[in-house]
Amino acid sequence: MPVLLSPPQAAALLPVPGVRLGVAEAAIRKLNRKDLTLIELAPGARVAGVFTQNRFCAAPVQVCKANLPAGGIRALVINTGVANAGTGEPGLAAARATCEAVAAQFEIDASQVLPFSTGVILEPLPVERLVAGLPAAKAALKADGWFCAAHGIMTTDTVPKAASRQVQLGGKTITLTGISKGAGMIKPNMATMLGFMATDADVAQPLLDALLKEVADLSFNSITVDGDTSTNDSFMLIATGQAGNPTITDAASADYAVFRAAVLDLAIWLAQAIVRDGEGATKFMTLQIEGGKDRDECRKVGYAIGHSPLVKTAFFASDPNLGRILAAIGYAGIDDLDVAGIKVWLASNGEEVLVAELGGRASSYREEDGSSIMQASEIAIRVDLGRGEGKATMWTCDFSYDYVKINADYRS
Amino acid sequence: MPVLLSPPQAAALLPVPGVRLGVAEAAIRKLNRKDLTLIELAPGARVAGVFTQNRFCAAPVQVCKANLPAGGIRALVINTGVANAGTGEPGLAAARATCEAVAAQFEIDASQVLPFSTGVILEPLPVERLVAGLPAAKAALKADGWFCAAHGIMTTDTVPKAASRQVQLGGKTITLTGISKGAGMIKPNMATMLGFMATDADVAQPLLDALLKEVADLSFNSITVDGDTSTNDSFMLIATGQAGNPTITDAASADYAVFRAAVLDLAIWLAQAIVRDGEGATKFMTLQIEGGKDRDECRKVGYAIGHSPLVKTAFFASDPNLGRILAAIGYAGIDDLDVAGIKVWLASNGEEVLVAELGGRASSYREEDGSSIMQASEIAIRVDLGRGEGKATMWTCDFSYDYVKINADYRS
Repeated sequence: MPVLLSPPQAAALLPVPGVRLGVAEAAIRKLNRKDLTLIELAPGARVAGVFTQNRFCAAPVQVCKANLPAGGIRALVINTGVANAGTGEPGLAAARATCEAVAAQFEIDASQVLPFSTGVILEPLPVERLVAGLPAAKAALKADGWFCAAHGIMTTDTVPKAASRQVQLGGKTITLTGISKGAGMIKPNMATMLGFMATDADVAQPLLDALLKEVADLSFNSITVDGDTSTNDSFMLIATGQAGNPTITDAASADYAVFRAAVLDLAIWLAQAIVRDGEGATKFMTLQIEGGKDRDECRKVGYAIGHSPLVKTAFFASDPNLGRILAAIGYAGIDDLDVAGIKVWLASNGEEVLVAELGGRASSYREEDGSSIMQASEIAIRVDLGRGEGKATMWTCDFSYDYVKINADYRS
Repeated sequence: MPVLLSPPQAAALLPVPGVRLGVAEAAIRKLNRKDLTLIELAPGARVAGVFTQNRFCAAPVQVCKANLPAGGIRALVINTGVANAGTGEPGLAAARATCEAVAAQFEIDASQVLPFSTGVILEPLPVERLVAGLPAAKAALKADGWFCAAHGIMTTDTVPKAASRQVQLGGKTITLTGISKGAGMIKPNMATMLGFMATDADVAQPLLDALLKEVADLSFNSITVDGDTSTNDSFMLIATGQAGNPTITDAASADYAVFRAAVLDLAIWLAQAIVRDGEGATKFMTLQIEGGKDRDECRKVGYAIGHSPLVKTAFFASDPNLGRILAAIGYAGIDDLDVAGIKVWLASNGEEVLVAELGGRASSYREEDGSSIMQASEIAIRVDLGRGEGKATMWTCDFSYDYVKINADYRS
C-alpha cells in the first residue's frame, strides 16, 4: 500500500500538444502485460535528459546519451521486463535495433529515437518480440495516452504515477504532464529509474538543459528507497513549443521563474510518488537537514539516515528508537562534526518535538511525545548540524517485511 | 539460526594466565539477565584497543580513549542493555562513576579501568544498579570465566562467540582466547561492537598496538551486517606476559610472525562469527575483491555489494539475480571504472562459476549453475576489477524477514 498516494484519475492528466502516447503488450518477459510504450513527439520538440551515473549504465542509456545532443528527437520507446543492462555489446546492438525499428515505423532516422528499458539486469533483451509489438503501440498513439503510459512503464510499482500542472506564460496557458516509475533500486544519481515530463511551453534548449539538471537535483536526486543506484535511471523533459508563448530564453525572466516553479513542483511530486510507493513502504519520511557547512554534507547526513536499515525498521515499527538516528548522523562521514552542536526534531501532523541536543537526549523530550509522532504515516526528521548555512531536503520510506518479500520474490 | 556457527564448548575455551572473568545480573535494562561482566587483569598486563569512529561515540568509549594511553590497566567492565551513547555530559559522568566504583572494588585507580557499554542508544545508564552489581561480578571472577563472559556481553546475539588458540613462542606454549558480540548495527569502523582477546604472550606495547590496528583492519573492519556503524565499537587485545616467552619486540622476528598469525586467525574467526550470527542471517557471504588500483577501492566495491539490500535479499531467496551485483559494483564510486574489464564469479562448496565478463553475462554462464551455487549456506562472490593489484576480502550476510522483525521489535 503506497503511503498517501492514490492512482491518478485519467481525466486529470492533461494532454500536451505535440505529444502522443501508445502502449502495447509485447511479451518482453511475461505474457499479457502492457510492457511497451511509445511516445511520439511533433517536429520541433526539444528534449533534455539526465541519466544514471552507475558505471554499469544500461545499453539504452548509452544510446540515449549518443542520440540526444544532436536534437531532433521524434520518438521515445520504453520497455519493461528486461533492463538491457549488463548485456555488453549484444545489448548495445539490441538497443540500436530497437531504434531502427521505431524509426522505420515513423519514417525518421534511428538517431531521432531514444530507447529506455527497465526490469531485470543481466538478461538479453528479446528485441524481436519488442519490434513485433511496435505496430500495436503505434496504432494506440493518442494525445490523452498519459494514463495508459503511466501504467505501461510500471514494474514493481503498485500504483501508476502521473500528474499535470498548468501555468500562464506570456498570456498563454501552458501544460505540464509527467509520469514516473520505480519502487526499488532507488537511489537516483542524476535521475530516477524513469521519469518523463512534457510541456507545450516554448523554451530554448540551453535553458531546458540547465533547468532539468537543477530540478533533477532537487527532486529525483533527493530521494532514496534502498540506496541502490539503478543502471537505467533516466529523467526526460520534453518541450514541444506548441503553446505559442514567447520563447523563454532568459533565466532571469519572470516567465522562466514561473515555468521553473511549475517544473520543479511536478518533478518533486513525481519523485515523492516513487518514495510513497517504495517497495514495502508504510511510512513517508522527509529528511530536512540544515545548518551544514554546505549542501553536500547535509546530503551525506540525509543519505546516512535514509539508508540506515536500523532507522528504517524502527520507523516501520513506529518505535521512537531515536538513538539510531544519532548513530547514523555520527557515521555520515563528517570528520570534524561536533555532536554537542546538533539538534534533532521529529515532526508529524503539524507537531514538532525536540529529541536530541547537547550530544544527548533533550531534557524536555518525553518518550510518549516521540511515540505519538511516530504513529503518523508522514514523518519529518529535522536535523540542525549547527555549523553553517547549508541545507538539503530529501525523502525516503521505511523498511518493512514486504521490502524483503518483494525483493526475494522479484523475478520468480 | 546462525550460519554454520555453534556455541562454544566451555571446555574448549582456555584460561589465559593473568586474566579472570566474572559475570552478574545487575538489572541494567531487564531483570534476570546476566548483563554485567568484569575482567580482571594481573599487574603488568599490556592492553591495546581500537574504537569506533562514529562521531557520536559513546561515553565509555571516550573514557577508554582517555585511560588507555597511560597503561597500567587492571580491570575492564562491560554492561549490556544500555549503550550509554547519545547521553551527553551525564553519560560521561556515569561512565566515570562506573570506573570509580570498579576501582574501589579492586583498590586501584579509576584511570586503570576501561568501561564498555552496549545496548539501546539515547537512554541514561542506570549507574546505581550497575554499581550495586559489581560485588557479585567480582565474587564470580575465575580464570575459566570466558564461557560466562561470552554470554554476559550478548545482546541480540543468538549464540555466544568465543574461541581459543595456542602457539609455541620461544619454547613456551602461549594461549590466545577471545570473545565477541554483535549482530546488528554492524559496519565496524576501527573495530566491531565488542571484541576482547587476551593472551599470556609477552609482547612489547608498541608491537601490540600496531598489531591490533593491522588485525582490526583485516578482521572486524572487514565485516558488515547492515552498514550501520555503531557508537560503541571496541576491540581490545590484552597481553599479560605470563607465558614466560622472551619478550617479542621485533616485528621482523619469527616469533612475531607466529604470534601475528595466531592473533589474526582468532580475530577473523571472532569477526566472522558476528556475521554468521548477523540479525536474521541465513547465508554467509565472502566478498573477494581483487584487481583494484588499491585496497581502498576494493573495499568500496565490497561495501557496495555487502550493503545492497537488493543483493542481500536475492541471496536470502537463493535467487541468482546477479545483475544486482553488477549494479552495486557500478555505483560503488569508482568514477573511471571500465566495466568491460570486470569479471564476477560465484563460488560455493569448491565450485566456481564465471557469471559476468565484457560488461555482460558470461557466454558460458548457465542459470542452473548460478542456482546451484546459491543453494549453499556459504557463498563467495569474487570480483576482478581488472585494473591493478589491490585486493580486499570482506564478509557479510543476507537480508531476511527476520532482520526486519528483530529490528522492528528490538526495545520492546
